[in-house]
Amino acid sequence: MIQLTLIQLDNYGPWTELLGMDRESDLQILQSELYADLQRLFALKRGLVFFNRFDNMLAVSNGISVKEHEVMLRSVTRRYPVSISMGIGSAESPYEAQVLATKVLQEIGSAHSETRKSILAHNSNDNSGQEYVQIAHIDINGFTMNMTDRESAYQSSYVIYSSTAILMRMFADKGALLFFNGGDNFIAVCNGLKKSALKEIFDRFETSTNLKLKAGIGFGKNALDALSRANVGLSLIRVKKTNDAIVVNEEEML
Amino acid sequence: MIQLTLIQLDNYGPWTELLGMDRESDLQILQSELYADLQRLFALKRGLVFFNRFDNMLAVSNGISVKEHEVMLRSVTRRYPVSISMGIGSAESPYEAQVLATKVLQEIGSAHSETRKSILAHNSNDNSGQEYVQIAHIDINGFTMNMTDRESAYQSSYVIYSSTAILMRMFADKGALLFFNGGDNFIAVCNGLKKSALKEIFDRFETSTNLKLKAGIGFGKNALDALSRANVGLSLIRVKKTNDAIVVNEEEML
Amino acid sequence: MIQLTLIQLDNYGPWTELLGMDRESDLQILQSELYADLQRLFALKRGLVFFNRFDNMLAVSNGISVKEHEVMLRSVTRRYPVSISMGIGSAESPYEAQVLATKVLQEIGSAHSETRKSILAHNSNDNSGQEYVQIAHIDINGFTMNMTDRESAYQSSYVIYSSTAILMRMFADKGALLFFNGGDNFIAVCNGLKKSALKEIFDRFETSTNLKLKAGIGFGKNALDALSRANVGLSLIRVKKTNDAIVVNEEEML
Amino acid sequence: MIQLTLIQLDNYGPWTELLGMDRESDLQILQSELYADLQRLFALKRGLVFFNRFDNMLAVSNGISVKEHEVMLRSVTRRYPVSISMGIGSAESPYEAQVLATKVLQEIGSAHSETRKSILAHNSNDNSGQEYVQIAHIDINGFTMNMTDRESAYQSSYVIYSSTAILMRMFADKGALLFFNGGDNFIAVCNGLKKSALKEIFDRFETSTNLKLKAGIGFGKNALDALSRANVGLSLIRVKKTNDAIVVNEEEML
Repeated sequence: MIQLTLIQLDNYGPWTELLGMDRESDLQILQSELYADLQRLFALKRGLVFFNRFDNMLAVSNGISVKEHEVMLRSVTRRYPVSISMGIGSAESPYEAQVLATKVLQEIGSAHSETRKSILAHNSNDNSGQEYVQIAHIDINGFTMNMTDRESAYQSSYVIYSSTAILMRMFADKGALLFFNGGDNFIAVCNGLKKSALKEIFDRFETSTNLKLKAGIGFGKNALDALSRANVGLSLIRVKKTNDAIVVNEEEML
Repeated sequence: MIQLTLIQLDNYGPWTELLGMDRESDLQILQSELYADLQRLFALKRGLVFFNRFDNMLAVSNGISVKEHEVMLRSVTRRYPVSISMGIGSAESPYEAQVLATKVLQEIGSAHSETRKSILAHNSNDNSGQEYVQIAHIDINGFTMNMTDRESAYQSSYVIYSSTAILMRMFADKGALLFFNGGDNFIAVCNGLKKSALKEIFDRFETSTNLKLKAGIGFGKNALDALSRANVGLSLIRVKKTNDAIVVNEEEML
Repeated sequence: MIQLTLIQLDNYGPWTELLGMDRESDLQILQSELYADLQRLFALKRGLVFFNRFDNMLAVSNGISVKEHEVMLRSVTRRYPVSISMGIGSAESPYEAQVLATKVLQEIGSAHSETRKSILAHNSNDNSGQEYVQIAHIDINGFTMNMTDRESAYQSSYVIYSSTAILMRMFADKGALLFFNGGDNFIAVCNGLKKSALKEIFDRFETSTNLKLKAGIGFGKNALDALSRANVGLSLIRVKKTNDAIVVNEEEML
Repeated sequence: MIQLTLIQLDNYGPWTELLGMDRESDLQILQSELYADLQRLFALKRGLVFFNRFDNMLAVSNGISVKEHEVMLRSVTRRYPVSISMGIGSAESPYEAQVLATKVLQEIGSAHSETRKSILAHNSNDNSGQEYVQIAHIDINGFTMNMTDRESAYQSSYVIYSSTAILMRMFADKGALLFFNGGDNFIAVCNGLKKSALKEIFDRFETSTNLKLKAGIGFGKNALDALSRANVGLSLIRVKKTNDAIVVNEEEML
């Protein structure tokens, strides 16, 4: 079972409209600081937040209790002019877990509801003892040398954003979630995904884009344990200690 | 003439490798706080920064002098464990301006250079008296009601990321730049783009995605003036004071 | 037993000298963001950090293990251009605990050592089962009405800073620690301090300054539990549900 | 003429009471991030903010117009759950300037007013052409070696806080303002203060505390210019290029 948390700003769009026309830079600062803030809180509990759309963030939250979610929710609400609500979902597949996390929050009220405020929505999600996260850390081979150092900044970004869209779809088709994480880095939350299935995604991606991917895969009881082990694998490829494009870190879960 | 600044972290990838395997959450915090920081500095000078890929940000910097760039560059360098370099470019079209900003920085050294550090690269870019920015603020009609409140969070994000990729290409073809700005919001830096050309982009986008866009367009001597005026137009559409999907704010430039 | 952590920036003074003459505003930003950062990390573990001198912060860290200290130390070191070191000390009295925390760090090297970097200094400090924190939350009666709204801002600050100095000495004489916490608020870490002894401090303070103090006192296994209970007491006085100047929250420790 | 700005949180105390008993760590984060935020904004306009009591900050704001104050005030108000108000005052002496800045704000309403919100209070303060700031950057000789590395952290802090109180009074008697700035550093805003008068303060301070002070003095049209020049002087003493305890940087004002 993997546990995902959807973090959604309450009535954000309508609120921003009240701030006057010259608001955009302040909203950008607010959004990115809120994300950094949540990342810090979740990370200390070994979770990991993806910025996603900024007004809707997704976090892998295995091992983080409802009560710990509440503490984080309240802490954030005290320090920002907008509140956040959260939905928690658990399932075997990451895709299904975020479906459940979304549903439980949608049932409380619209993202534009004027009354929904600082809600923590969840079903009894007691997955203790079965916690498990599989993560793949992915990047594009030679991106700095071939793109960043050669093409225009916008062209490089276009390649990344279109790659993100392509990969998001491919991973969803396997029940997994793919997030762009800055630079040329992607993190896939991919419980149950076989190495061969990942290889297939990489091959199809290369066929359509002419870009080669590489990845380390790790497992753990929580997001950061799994990601740390995935990094070990990716690091082996980067320093060319292996010719494989995918390294699975078979390290026993602690 | 529009002026664009490319902000690039120096030797970022190799540096992150030194931080140990459990680094990702700290990198995410670092990246988003650095972006917030730069946004604050540029915004006070009426510029606007796009997070783009986070290790490569693009800013509309009309009216911000080389010396003011230097002050910001030094301030950031003092407060972060990684340094940044910048390239400044000016041209008639936004696309060309970012090409020049990228080139001038690439000529100084690779993004993975171990010696390039805190460089401000620019050609004599004296565009005083001809400063001009055109910005379109764009969002998707009924996105919260039709997507955020109905579909799963990941599915909604997929729609946004694939829309971003499609729009980035369409705008580039017109010499303009399109950035995703969180939520269902996009900002296009689009000097010289006619309303009819934007209409054409919107129509083609609707054909391929079945999503309707709307936009306000504004002009100004700098990014924030232009964006504020674009917001006035977008606001008129949102409150249904017009049935047009694109409102051009004809307000005289101050 | 109470556990205190001294957080000291490594070789901070000499490092600042390298930044050029126009550095002060950046140092101020750095110092206060580092403090906010550490507060967030410690608070999620129910600890509390006092800004103190900013380059030397003190934290009540009961219940936070050596390993958890290490995680926080590493996280901060990754995101700032200067590193921090920490010393942990435990004792019956708060004063003695900070003496031990200081000593164990001093033994590793000078605050201006060029080689001491990111050190976590501690003796086997296994105080599990005996964790206990007593905190008094103190403010000055009618300060806003009598001072902030009447006197000049500097004069009000002078009263606060000189009050801080007086109270720091009085509490130290009782083996307790007093910190200024902004506004007209003080927090005393005061394990073992009797209500009568606090009353005596308040009386002597009033005699020398003509200012009346009030306080709530709370107990807990960690800093935030104790402080929350102290706040309950202080709140009763503020809303005039009691005429006593000191309310001890006798709530059983959880 | 020197211009000072008082920055005061609106109805802060009563607002904090609404946040529940477990609020203190969040308030500390909020206060220090707000200070960092304002420092960044003022510094980009060559001003300097002192954290002072955190709910009441003082800034040297020469050269920053009323309109620029308004932009900063609005930017902050959009991003925090509490608003701030400001008062601006100009006078020949720094002390008098802060008296005027306080008065003009007090006249608008109490710091605990429920209706005063995001106000910028000022009299016609057109001091263009006469802008002038004198700053002394002061520290304590050998503080790290004699105190930080030898005494307990609390004892060192006590010395700093009681020194601050003593110096605040001494400078106020000369019409100047003294602020503690972290570590063992003090910044005095001291237009018109002669070197001999500063020497006299240092001598009296040494007599009563047995601590020796040193200082660089600088002048400028704004806070950061003056402080940068003061740093040049202080630096000369630190590297022992002079035996004088006070170095006045006679550099012509630009």
